[in-house]
Amino acid sequence: MSRRTLALGAFLHPSGHHVAAWRHPAARADAGIDIRNYIRLARLAEAARFDLVFLADQIAVPSDNLDYVSRTTRATYFEPLTLISALAAATQRIGVIATVSTSFNSPYNLARYFASLDQISGGRAGWNLVTSGSRLEGENFGLGEDYYSHAGRYRQALEFAEVVRGLWDSFEEDAVLDDRAAGRYLDAAKVHAIEHRGAHYQVRGPLSVPRSPQGQPVLVQAGSSEAGRDLAARAAELVFTAQTSLAQAQAFYADVKARARAYGRAAEDIHILPGVFPVVGRTQAEADEKFRLLQDLVPPEVGREYLSIHLGGVDLSAHADDDPVPEIAVDGRGHVSRPLLLLQKARERNLTIRELYLEIAGARGHWQLVGTPETIADALQDWFENGGADGFNIMPPSPTGLDDFVALVLPELRRRGLAREDYTARTLRGNLGLRVPQNRFAQSPAPEKPEREKEAT
Amino acid sequence: MSRRTLALGAFLHPSGHHVAAWRHPAARADAGIDIRNYIRLARLAEAARFDLVFLADQIAVPSDNLDYVSRTTRATYFEPLTLISALAAATQRIGVIATVSTSFNSPYNLARYFASLDQISGGRAGWNLVTSGSRLEGENFGLGEDYYSHAGRYRQALEFAEVVRGLWDSFEEDAVLDDRAAGRYLDAAKVHAIEHRGAHYQVRGPLSVPRSPQGQPVLVQAGSSEAGRDLAARAAELVFTAQTSLAQAQAFYADVKARARAYGRAAEDIHILPGVFPVVGRTQAEADEKFRLLQDLVPPEVGREYLSIHLGGVDLSAHADDDPVPEIAVDGRGHVSRPLLLLQKARERNLTIRELYLEIAGARGHWQLVGTPETIADALQDWFENGGADGFNIMPPSPTGLDDFVALVLPELRRRGLAREDYTARTLRGNLGLRVPQNRFAQSPAPEKPEREKEAT
Repeated sequence: MSRRTLALGAFLHPSGHHVAAWRHPAARADAGIDIRNYIRLARLAEAARFDLVFLADQIAVPSDNLDYVSRTTRATYFEPLTLISALAAATQRIGVIATVSTSFNSPYNLARYFASLDQISGGRAGWNLVTSGSRLEGENFGLGEDYYSHAGRYRQALEFAEVVRGLWDSFEEDAVLDDRAAGRYLDAAKVHAIEHRGAHYQVRGPLSVPRSPQGQPVLVQAGSSEAGRDLAARAAELVFTAQTSLAQAQAFYADVKARARAYGRAAEDIHILPGVFPVVGRTQAEADEKFRLLQDLVPPEVGREYLSIHLGGVDLSAHADDDPVPEIAVDGRGHVSRPLLLLQKARERNLTIRELYLEIAGARGHWQLVGTPETIADALQDWFENGGADGFNIMPPSPTGLDDFVALVLPELRRRGLAREDYTARTLRGNLGLRVPQNRFAQSPAPEKPEREKEAT
Repeated sequence: MSRRTLALGAFLHPSGHHVAAWRHPAARADAGIDIRNYIRLARLAEAARFDLVFLADQIAVPSDNLDYVSRTTRATYFEPLTLISALAAATQRIGVIATVSTSFNSPYNLARYFASLDQISGGRAGWNLVTSGSRLEGENFGLGEDYYSHAGRYRQALEFAEVVRGLWDSFEEDAVLDDRAAGRYLDAAKVHAIEHRGAHYQVRGPLSVPRSPQGQPVLVQAGSSEAGRDLAARAAELVFTAQTSLAQAQAFYADVKARARAYGRAAEDIHILPGVFPVVGRTQAEADEKFRLLQDLVPPEVGREYLSIHLGGVDLSAHADDDPVPEIAVDGRGHVSRPLLLLQKARERNLTIRELYLEIAGARGHWQLVGTPETIADALQDWFENGGADGFNIMPPSPTGLDDFVALVLPELRRRGLAREDYTARTLRGNLGLRVPQNRFAQSPAPEKPEREKEAT
């Protein structure tokens, strides 16, 4: 294990992931829509040799309750495809991954967006596939109550992903001839329509974007439910997940890798990156104080509504902050894995509503580490070396959270040989050690190689 | 008229607009998917103080005939939203306009893309609204023969644009409070759902992007049919059009402005920019030679198929290159205005098939000027000063076509006081002299001003 190094993502969020980060003294007023904020963070992550920056998405304001919405910055943020494209142009080496839902898009458009981003970035793009289930999101697309059956949307997502990957193979690697004398730009035999006719989609192709320097964008998946794991095992190359104990993380890790093997894939074809919310201090007291500063900025009305949203929109108004978290049925219409995880935690630790909302105010159910560089590095190393993770998606708590991680934790990880000193490849796939997918239309398999080198832009 | 200056767009196309530009000695092999090519051109246009760069779109390979496709670069290009976002990050002052069809998108996504781009660019974004009608495009979205009734798709587009503009008003200008002490980031009374329930779309809102530095992205329209003109008159602020004689241009210009006035708008609320394909030489002989070089690179099989596509997919196989252009019915299922324009030209001038395909091989039915800086400036000035145009969308013929225009024609336009020496504003809207739209939700009208100044990124 000792020669492997951690895959590291920087999960960018306006002022930081903590729900009260915008009230932090170092926050910028318009952090969610200031491109300079994002460019600074992406370049910081790149200078620190993170593998990737990661952008989440939400396709509606987060609540009907505009009073709540107005007490957060959750209603003011960039659309991720446009933002990630700008970040691709502002960086040179770091991977750029954006979340786009299969529920409100067509596979042809999505395949084009990411194929184009992959060319713009010189082979650094990744797509985080999610499905959408919230009523508020559906109502922005004329969709009623019935659109979000959990199983249905995953069946749709699986077909969606198949179409997208088919379209990404439209051009074989050597399809561009540029034979000016003969007047032949492409080899017509190496450009392919896919003629897909499935249950949800009919898509002809070909896509009008040549194959990228990394073959295909990296496919990321972020749902941890049964259906999400199955989709990950079939199609994903990175899995972003919320795990809060090593035992849980090990079980998830082993399960997803076993499922991948059952689909004929190798365990190393799929990397598992739990989210980590690190609050770093030079001493434990300093870390605790940094965290307390953020927690003290959470008003009860924000905490309660935030919890309600993370439990799938449940009504908590009959309960006081000091009441124990009540029994709640998760009906599978909205998100599934996260509410179950939170309810399990509440039951195990007998939490009150206030305790549970303060639990998620920072990491939203992800792994929360408040400590020194040494204790945080210990925890990451423990998971990494014991079958819990192939790396981590770092969720900076505050406007200076990524700076803290880079300045304090990363050197400690490097001292331990856990973090890479420099990029080893030009593509995201290359840096992650993921293989270039074989083009389904290629007559003779190309020789296998870890990545195709090409000058990045 | 003398104090007005031309609005200038740089209509970027991989190696240039000429169908054979990729065979030009100065062409790069991968111009269509090389971000460095586009960044170079966008920065060149910005240094020359163009108002905007403009990207077209096509959502399929251009023909079933893969032999034809393989003889062009028309199947290898960036998706425009991702590309324009990257160009926004790579420039500081120039406007960034991308074409996106209403036919294969949802208004909520589109409104978000452009609102986000407008924030990324610091108020420099514009959306060129088009509708799609080709069978090949429809087949990438599971749409059969019936999706493309011309009238139907414009009715849909009009509602689409209304929804998008409503969503762009979700946030009033002063909705962001950032009151950290009180824990109130937004003024809830200034964030609005639109609750749209129309014939084609049901969209709740609000959009999760605050109002941009220019109020709303600039709305551009590019169809010149009856339905296209009506849509332009109702909603567009820039109109991109193909006109090839002053008389035609004047008629179009007067008609669109009159229609706009009939909808209660001022003539100066809508700018009309014909496309211009300028082949510039220091002498007429040099210009002619540059053009001949490109025309000689068009193989007959490319010319014929290119013509067939521009006539709406008509089958020309029963006719020889030297036959006169036959009578062809334009059925209104695909594009309408361009085929009619080409057929009119063929009849007026008794053109053969070869002559007509060579006519469009460069400018695709746009205005083609082959001349010296003086003669080209004369022609532009004539249209500008005689009610034919408010400016032009410059279509560089070849890899060095924009360089030629900037080095040779622009100084001549400046000498005549027709082109601006520098930007006058921070936003696209400001540079174009377009008013900031009143927010429909604002209680009291904001004081009118030509643009809201804000530091661009």
